[in-house]
Amino acid sequence: MKVIGLEAIKTKLEKIDVLPLIEEGFVKYSQGQAVVPPVGELLIHDVEGEVHIKYGYIKQDDIYVIKIASGFYQNASLGLPAGNGLMLVFNQKTGEPLALLQDEAYLTDVRTAVAGAIAAKYLAPKVVNCIGIVGTGIQARLQLQYLKTATDCTNVMVWGRNAKAAELFQEEMAAKGYGISVVTDTKDIMQSCQIIVTTTPSKISLLSVDDLKAGTHITAIGSDTPDKQEVDAQILAQADVVVADSISQCRTRGEISQALKQGIIAEDDILELGNIISGSSVGRTSEEQITIADLTGVAVQDIQIAKAVYLT
Amino acid sequence: MKVIGLEAIKTKLEKIDVLPLIEEGFVKYSQGQAVVPPVGELLIHDVEGEVHIKYGYIKQDDIYVIKIASGFYQNASLGLPAGNGLMLVFNQKTGEPLALLQDEAYLTDVRTAVAGAIAAKYLAPKVVNCIGIVGTGIQARLQLQYLKTATDCTNVMVWGRNAKAAELFQEEMAAKGYGISVVTDTKDIMQSCQIIVTTTPSKISLLSVDDLKAGTHITAIGSDTPDKQEVDAQILAQADVVVADSISQCRTRGEISQALKQGIIAEDDILELGNIISGSSVGRTSEEQITIADLTGVAVQDIQIAKAVYLT
Repeated sequence: MKVIGLEAIKTKLEKIDVLPLIEEGFVKYSQGQAVVPPVGELLIHDVEGEVHIKYGYIKQDDIYVIKIASGFYQNASLGLPAGNGLMLVFNQKTGEPLALLQDEAYLTDVRTAVAGAIAAKYLAPKVVNCIGIVGTGIQARLQLQYLKTATDCTNVMVWGRNAKAAELFQEEMAAKGYGISVVTDTKDIMQSCQIIVTTTPSKISLLSVDDLKAGTHITAIGSDTPDKQEVDAQILAQADVVVADSISQCRTRGEISQALKQGIIAEDDILELGNIISGSSVGRTSEEQITIADLTGVAVQDIQIAKAVYLT
Repeated sequence: MKVIGLEAIKTKLEKIDVLPLIEEGFVKYSQGQAVVPPVGELLIHDVEGEVHIKYGYIKQDDIYVIKIASGFYQNASLGLPAGNGLMLVFNQKTGEPLALLQDEAYLTDVRTAVAGAIAAKYLAPKVVNCIGIVGTGIQARLQLQYLKTATDCTNVMVWGRNAKAAELFQEEMAAKGYGISVVTDTKDIMQSCQIIVTTTPSKISLLSVDDLKAGTHITAIGSDTPDKQEVDAQILAQADVVVADSISQCRTRGEISQALKQGIIAEDDILELGNIISGSSVGRTSEEQITIADLTGVAVQDIQIAKAVYLT
């Protein structure tokens, strides 16, 4: 059994073109070629800890993957990052453990950012003058960086609850060549940006339907549990195209689950990302349409990125 | 993160008195002090593979544990054991991974055998002239060895589907000081043995209620899924004392689930092992009673054994 540490994983990742692998994963998932049981969940209320176990395999593949990702939201007071985790790769024919990837949640961060880039690639309008980022954490940074594969735009507005964190984001991302404006009202983002990515663990809506403009694409990343929500559910009702990474998972988790619960969208209105990638469903058909992708994270992303790291 | 291989685990285990730790785990589980979500399951039909993920923690403890155990039933044709697996130990306060125990399912085998010994310790009659073992695999061997802690009896009858495997069992266990008779009908075991342990993955009953004698204790180990069964469900209806390691788990898995499904026992008739250990439920009260323990395996056993290995 190989044991691969974080630095080695980062080195290997530089050699891997992750985007087509994750696209392939979504397509196989939507075609019913992936086996992905419900997410396992362990909650440790005393310390606001949550652990998710995502696992599964692609049929006729060589491996299966079990991913453990945790968020412990009091870790900051100990000077530790909230997120942690690891991935395990096993032989699909024999059950033998093949590799432990000690990625400390980094691979989850990357595969999530790549999914955001894929959503933008297939759903965003052609002309993008400004990117809006809601949130100022690791995922906010990675989403912006991976959007390079979907758009040339480097003009960015960022909003965060914490002014200092927003400034830090501005500094860091400016150093990477982006033009960053910090805004204090998400309305500014809604008015100016054609791609908007939300990356917070918010439990209240941060984007209002009143500010929604034609020709906007929104990717909602942060909401991955039944009680998190970043986007006014009415935005989903107004959107021309609503896309889930996994329709079955979005029934109970994420923005779509909120809109379904309120009865303002129907399950038949939802398309699945893998079907848009393969062309069997049609996404955006005009620059004026409003599109939204709700990404809750599917084990097939973990399977594909873990396999690539293991084989590299 | 410590990575501990099988040989190191075996060396550490020699220094650990596992039985009281597993007893403590069962007691805390029955007292509601353990958080044990439903078992995660991944099936790979092509190769008769099944993967179980058991996980959880004891409240106010320092750790949580995730255990992965697989059975791939075509492995024998490749010269590989069917069972494999590993355990992961994490910090309960921060989510940090602390240890990977590469036990190749050995710790699962041991904690299962120890649970059998605990069941016999609390439920078997005082006078044991003969132990009956149904099955001839690793678990059959370990159950017999760990029964030492519950009885001095070394007089053993063994039954197995495969005559060669039964002979091999006889040879190996005779070398360890047991007097072993191989029988070809489980009726012989039912007539002569006061402690009977079933350790097979059978899907049909191997012990008939017609052969049941007063003063017998049966521990059913093999059946841990909804479709496995080793014992005639009528034996549970006839028994004076029916004990589950986890009542909630036995609703859907194991011998008890079969008897409940047939409506021949009621959930109120079932006692939980942890409550018998703590004394809050009463097990056997006379030598003449018939007792049966149905052990499907609870994550709290994994938590306790993994913690001990990690700390040793």
